[in-house]
Amino acid sequence: MSHTMGASSFPEIIRRKRDGGQLSAEEIHAFIEGVKTCNIQESQIGAMLMAIWQKNMVVEETMVLTKEMMMSGEVLKWPEEWAGLVVDKHSTGGVGDKVSLPLAPALAACGFKVPMISGRGLAHTGGTLDKLESIPGFNIHLSVEQVKQILQDVGCCIVGQTETLVPADRVLYALRDITATVDSVPLITASILSKKAAEGLSALVLDVKFGKAALYKDLNSARRLAQSLVTVGNSLGIKTGAVLSQMDSPIGRCVGNAVEVCEALECLKGRGPDDLKNLVTSLGSYLLQMSGRSATLEAGQKAISEVLMNGMALQKFQAMLEAQGVATHISRSLCSEKAEYFKHLRRAQYQTELEAPDDGTVLGIDGMALAMVLHKLGAGRVRAGEPINHSVGAELLVDPGQRIKRGQSWIRIHHDCTTLSSKQHADLLGALVIGSGNDYQDSTQVAEFILPN
Amino acid sequence: MSHTMGASSFPEIIRRKRDGGQLSAEEIHAFIEGVKTCNIQESQIGAMLMAIWQKNMVVEETMVLTKEMMMSGEVLKWPEEWAGLVVDKHSTGGVGDKVSLPLAPALAACGFKVPMISGRGLAHTGGTLDKLESIPGFNIHLSVEQVKQILQDVGCCIVGQTETLVPADRVLYALRDITATVDSVPLITASILSKKAAEGLSALVLDVKFGKAALYKDLNSARRLAQSLVTVGNSLGIKTGAVLSQMDSPIGRCVGNAVEVCEALECLKGRGPDDLKNLVTSLGSYLLQMSGRSATLEAGQKAISEVLMNGMALQKFQAMLEAQGVATHISRSLCSEKAEYFKHLRRAQYQTELEAPDDGTVLGIDGMALAMVLHKLGAGRVRAGEPINHSVGAELLVDPGQRIKRGQSWIRIHHDCTTLSSKQHADLLGALVIGSGNDYQDSTQVAEFILPN
Repeated sequence: MSHTMGASSFPEIIRRKRDGGQLSAEEIHAFIEGVKTCNIQESQIGAMLMAIWQKNMVVEETMVLTKEMMMSGEVLKWPEEWAGLVVDKHSTGGVGDKVSLPLAPALAACGFKVPMISGRGLAHTGGTLDKLESIPGFNIHLSVEQVKQILQDVGCCIVGQTETLVPADRVLYALRDITATVDSVPLITASILSKKAAEGLSALVLDVKFGKAALYKDLNSARRLAQSLVTVGNSLGIKTGAVLSQMDSPIGRCVGNAVEVCEALECLKGRGPDDLKNLVTSLGSYLLQMSGRSATLEAGQKAISEVLMNGMALQKFQAMLEAQGVATHISRSLCSEKAEYFKHLRRAQYQTELEAPDDGTVLGIDGMALAMVLHKLGAGRVRAGEPINHSVGAELLVDPGQRIKRGQSWIRIHHDCTTLSSKQHADLLGALVIGSGNDYQDSTQVAEFILPN
Repeated sequence: MSHTMGASSFPEIIRRKRDGGQLSAEEIHAFIEGVKTCNIQESQIGAMLMAIWQKNMVVEETMVLTKEMMMSGEVLKWPEEWAGLVVDKHSTGGVGDKVSLPLAPALAACGFKVPMISGRGLAHTGGTLDKLESIPGFNIHLSVEQVKQILQDVGCCIVGQTETLVPADRVLYALRDITATVDSVPLITASILSKKAAEGLSALVLDVKFGKAALYKDLNSARRLAQSLVTVGNSLGIKTGAVLSQMDSPIGRCVGNAVEVCEALECLKGRGPDDLKNLVTSLGSYLLQMSGRSATLEAGQKAISEVLMNGMALQKFQAMLEAQGVATHISRSLCSEKAEYFKHLRRAQYQTELEAPDDGTVLGIDGMALAMVLHKLGAGRVRAGEPINHSVGAELLVDPGQRIKRGQSWIRIHHDCTTLSSKQHADLLGALVIGSGNDYQDSTQVAEFILPN
């Protein structure tokens, strides 16, 4: 591949994509090289992102884009004896999605190496790293050498992105956010997979959400992204499969940061809500099957379920906490059978329970509406780098499908402001969908699994 | 109009246009205010320009955009006694387009005030300002007070854009160029008219080119731009009309900078090529008619033709040169009946004549191909601010429609490099279109005139 394209060719490259043309490998290389070296102007990146949003990319372009982004920084290498063992999961994110917390140690308990590089995101209620940081002492900033050591000793770690991995994505990710070009299949594909490919993975399972509380509202759009991810991931030599999972109500009963850690710990103790456990076992079983460690999905599910029930996953989680800086007495206490979580996690000053306005069946909880209230209460951030309040959160006191009586408490809000405003009361009430029992449909299952052709 | 939209709303505004929605006046105001105050990030401007390019704007949006851009800086005010007299012309530009040079003084000779603010552009062979700067001493940098004085004394001037006029356009114009978003009807409309409206005009005629050597290749596209310009111009209170003129071959016989000044002077002396004279009289007559100073177009054409023939326009041009810094002996010499132009304008070191390869009829001269060779020889610039070689240029020695013989010289190239390369020879030869006389169609006329409904 020639590297001779100069800054003067950027308008030409933008023009080709603007007009719906297909970019050559050389042009995509020049674009990403420009992003990496700051040779391209920010206005040109903005125009290019919008042109890609408008005109899309064919799969060949997305493959090259992903690879070029991956190659913009360091690509992790692992000991040869780990061949086939290094795996990870990525979720497109949803309200109450704390799946990574139990899944990473469960996979480690099954013998995998899980170098999970996670994000904070600008989500309404923080990302995986934010949840973990509600545990005192938890350190997300590890060197590659430290990651390698923890994978050797424990088998899993959950860390932040380093400066050296995929620098081009850091630039593009920040600009996509402010230029309204986030929801583009090729851009999402390249962003997710360039980071995962830089982790040096053998296998990857993607949890692509659809539904009211997800980026994609309908199954078809989610399937397009999943297809793109699976095709491009496999073209990069990673065994990649995608789960399409419906996401109307939050996952589990807890939404926030500290409260989600509690729920993840419950799941690791063989308890906690079924929908969370089912998602963890499903995603884990696909990795077990794709890597050939389980003959069938059922066997894989059984293996994951077992390490959740027998404490092996919990043990890995506790070891990971300690390896990532949490004091032994805290990790031990949090992982004990009858933990008092709020002895170590900061509890918000106020807990307010809200009552149901009517009798009926809980048809669902509008996760997005709930998340937006929590966001305003401090659980998420508006700009990268802002602090968040780990204690803010919500506990659902009812499950979808359950009968509820007027006056019955259905949610407990953890907050540090003295009172909830009447608008917050109204918004929360709006998030509770009550109807007749006949209208209830269970929508918390995995809808489809997509494997490479 | 509320001014309360903040930086956090830019992604929302971009998203609305991205999705093909109509922007509100408040949103357009926020965007331009952001551009003016640098509160919006360059990547967001790039994305917005691309979204507008892709999804277009309805006429109401274009009106608001134009007005907001105009209001981003100073708007010129003239003495009350000039009401109805302040006029200007704008051309979308074409190879060999030196129309402004004779037209401005001709209009002044008819009693108009012409505060022509012109550009350099990144055209292949420089803009109007570049042509004028091939005259030693000509100063394009005048204050508003100086412009007013020259309009008072002479009636016309041709100057560069000041820092204070339409600052938002300076930003957007530069970014459109590098983001491949130049050819968008709303963006062109707003860019042209915001600058003209800031001149405080009573009437404006627009010369919208179409054809092989123009931005728009076909009449329909040019008509769309002309319609937009006329509608928006009149909505701003400027009597605005547009001429659609075909542009396959260059205008006149000279292309370059100094050589075009010579040709413009010939036109002002009642000589020079017919197509140039016809375009000048046409454009001038529309302004005379629109401002009610001529009852009919024919009367207007006669009036312009008269001042070109009787030396009154030439006198105005000479006075303008002197008012803009040219020494009297030079201006007088250039404007004398039998001027030796190259006594004062620098002549290139070499003149090379090229011979026709065949007998036939000259069907046309590919203006764009010719301009690209001249550009490489130094007549134009690649980046704003670069110097150009005013002496580089071409004189056509034949007219479209004329019979030509093999071996006959058809073009004279003025250049400072020792020899023309064989590629340049070939490219120039390719610009000469020879065929049978039956194939010739005169395409140098004004095709259509568009007035407000």
